[in-house]
Amino acid sequence: MPAPIGFYFDFISPYGWFGAVGIERIAARHGREVDWRPMLLGVAVMQVMGLKPLLDTPLKGDYVRRDVPRTAAFLGLPYKRIDAPLTPLPPARAFLWLKARDPARAKAFAQAVHARHFGEGINSTTIEGLAPVAARFGLAGDDLREATEGAEAKALLKASVDAALAAGVFGSPSFLVDGELFWGHDRLDQVEKWLATGGW
Amino acid sequence: MPAPIGFYFDFISPYGWFGAVGIERIAARHGREVDWRPMLLGVAVMQVMGLKPLLDTPLKGDYVRRDVPRTAAFLGLPYKRIDAPLTPLPPARAFLWLKARDPARAKAFAQAVHARHFGEGINSTTIEGLAPVAARFGLAGDDLREATEGAEAKALLKASVDAALAAGVFGSPSFLVDGELFWGHDRLDQVEKWLATGGW
Repeated sequence: MPAPIGFYFDFISPYGWFGAVGIERIAARHGREVDWRPMLLGVAVMQVMGLKPLLDTPLKGDYVRRDVPRTAAFLGLPYKRIDAPLTPLPPARAFLWLKARDPARAKAFAQAVHARHFGEGINSTTIEGLAPVAARFGLAGDDLREATEGAEAKALLKASVDAALAAGVFGSPSFLVDGELFWGHDRLDQVEKWLATGGW
Repeated sequence: MPAPIGFYFDFISPYGWFGAVGIERIAARHGREVDWRPMLLGVAVMQVMGLKPLLDTPLKGDYVRRDVPRTAAFLGLPYKRIDAPLTPLPPARAFLWLKARDPARAKAFAQAVHARHFGEGINSTTIEGLAPVAARFGLAGDDLREATEGAEAKALLKASVDAALAAGVFGSPSFLVDGELFWGHDRLDQVEKWLATGGW
């Protein structure tokens, strides 16, 4: 069995969503599994790289506000922008809490969060916003609280963020293919060739 | 006649080189001219955006050192890395000085600088390094000094940088297609579709 493709993403990153959709299609064509690994752009960009948030960066922020809907349409994905300050902590923790129990269910949960948050434009990054999706995957009441605020969930996310940084990951999405790191959904053409040829 | 495609680039940016090669091929397929417009990443990134240079950014610098040769090979371009502090001022000024006199010759000059600098790994960003290429395009002696250090050349580059910033350009390469801005050689797929369809 070849190793799974490591897929690093931040739940608030629309580019991460583009990458999620793309890497699953590519992996399926090459008989690979995809291991979803949440990271936090806030930690990587601000704390480690010493940069400001993308949307607060002069020129680049304006560009990204245009590039995201344009790219979504180019890729054939529905997209609705959410104008609220977002934190990826609740979905990232809930995803990892689920993954520790049932990886396949966790991935389906993450895909449902993506579709609702980016595709339908319903903020699914708060615990309240997440609740309707979480319920479909068996997470409600005390379980949802535990999965988003409990010590285990917090520790799982911290470990996931640390592992991403240790792998050199700084952006969402990133892909780790047999030790080779690719950043950006716009490197999926190279990812696919790497899978097909073993590298160059 | 449709308007030319605006192509913004920094002479020290290998991604700008990838973009230069790509946009000329695409423009030819769609019967468009490409207007080459030098910008300065140092001004855009450090002064306007308040970020640090790409290669000095933790994690991202290491990634880019790997991504550039990998992407060059993916694109079928020869690439040799130059390990020296680089300034794009001499080639950018000489390009604009030539462009004011003969736009076609200026573009051929820029392409020759790209091929020598990135493809052969011969630093062509100093006046001395630039001299052998410049001579092939009629620039030598006092003319070369004037084109790289004279008041006219300096004013031309300042105007080019200001115009790029006014157009919202912050990265190399960027492409302006009928008022629509695209950043990155990895947006050339969207550029080509925009040219073919008029936008979406």
